Amino acid sequence: MAATDRIWTAALVVIGDEILSGRTHDRNIAQVASWLQVQGIRLAEVRVVPDVEERIVEAVNALRTRNDYLFTTGGIGPTHDDITVDAVAKALGVPVIVHPDARAMLEKYYTGRGQPLTEARLRMARTPEGAELIPNRMSGAPGIRIGNMFLMAGVPHITAGMLDALTGTLEGGAPLVNETIGCWTAESEVADILRRVEADHADAPGGIQIGSYPFFREGRVGANFVVRSTDPALLARCVEELASALEAAGHAVSRGEI
Amino acid sequence: MAATDRIWTAALVVIGDEILSGRTHDRNIAQVASWLQVQGIRLAEVRVVPDVEERIVEAVNALRTRNDYLFTTGGIGPTHDDITVDAVAKALGVPVIVHPDARAMLEKYYTGRGQPLTEARLRMARTPEGAELIPNRMSGAPGIRIGNMFLMAGVPHITAGMLDALTGTLEGGAPLVNETIGCWTAESEVADILRRVEADHADAPGGIQIGSYPFFREGRVGANFVVRSTDPALLARCVEELASALEAAGHAVSRGEI
Repeated sequence: MAATDRIWTAALVVIGDEILSGRTHDRNIAQVASWLQVQGIRLAEVRVVPDVEERIVEAVNALRTRNDYLFTTGGIGPTHDDITVDAVAKALGVPVIVHPDARAMLEKYYTGRGQPLTEARLRMARTPEGAELIPNRMSGAPGIRIGNMFLMAGVPHITAGMLDALTGTLEGGAPLVNETIGCWTAESEVADILRRVEADHADAPGGIQIGSYPFFREGRVGANFVVRSTDPALLARCVEELASALEAAGHAVSRGEI
Repeated sequence: MAATDRIWTAALVVIGDEILSGRTHDRNIAQVASWLQVQGIRLAEVRVVPDVEERIVEAVNALRTRNDYLFTTGGIGPTHDDITVDAVAKALGVPVIVHPDARAMLEKYYTGRGQPLTEARLRMARTPEGAELIPNRMSGAPGIRIGNMFLMAGVPHITAGMLDALTGTLEGGAPLVNETIGCWTAESEVADILRRVEADHADAPGGIQIGSYPFFREGRVGANFVVRSTDPALLARCVEELASALEAAGHAVSRGEI
């Protein structure tokens, strides 16, 4: 496999009782996934775990060794249920320290607002020993980078700012490109065509995956077929083949998503 | 621990490349989580895995033994990337069969629409041996119940119909009740109060958890504090205590979510 064909993977651990209780609808999975695609990194697995130290440690240790990168969202704020730093330090077997740069950032942020740096706020300067900081453009508390791990905020627009700060800094492979074909046909009618086109290119460098996403709209059934590859030329050929095969079988095809 | 204090747990495995690619925003985690709360069952963990058999098998086997129930969403349709049934059968070490009742349902559904029951559609009648069916009010293909596992559709409104069919049929504990207090104060200012109130009741039967959910709105920071317990009387006492402590410290408190 050529160096450019290496597939880079990441995992995401979403930390927070609020997701598991159904109170908060997670928006970070899709956000992190889309961002990773642009970096040429594939999101391989996500786990959502409660604010319980041993469960965070377990997830972090299971996923950090088998992926190139591990991201976490949630649990880095100032309150008693924010235990991500402690759990990650435990997973890595390192102590928790007050990071001098993080402390300075928080001092500057709160002093600038005429507010004291309380004990609770100072919690947000704690990191596992050996960590670097990820800038937070939205509020005072930084994200944390340690080894191949990135600990980010849970509030989606703060997470977005941290991802933005990381853009272009992580090594990845060729980004996965995709193209979509829409079809006003039940996916069950064309399943054989999808399977055949994918199988025909299964061994090509760059690989091909075809995802089928059925919908029911305006009283009619249909499906979008998303073709993905790291090789743009192969992608174009496959999309052409799939469209021709669908049309030959009498189905109306839309280039692009319906 | 009295029988009513037993905590029932469930895990959820979300199956699908479309979630991990960021193409589709998952809506089933929140939907399943909220539904479980009403059944008196706690969602203990979620994993999102790709359409890859060994990854599904791994997640299913890790979670089904350590929870009372395991739910899956996605991968039970007619196309080549729908491999949930095969993966679960493999995890359980049982063969895949064509379920006679599921076949009859599909025949009725498609015949009623003047459409043939093709090989691809018949895939949706396949189940692990020993399974029962979960009615699907939206389309022909049923969900599948086997042992403590529930295999459901990935399309959220179809998942909703299957959950509805299961309502009240699963044994659970006392449902977790909750009440919310809002506060136009940065959570970092009141972290000590939250920690103290939670700690004061940590050992009470029914338990107390306080979640803190900060927000930034209308140019001001604030937070909602969600207090949860299985004991309604304890919940009411805790909410009262928290509100009094916040007010005593000079914070304006709103009963109910801001």
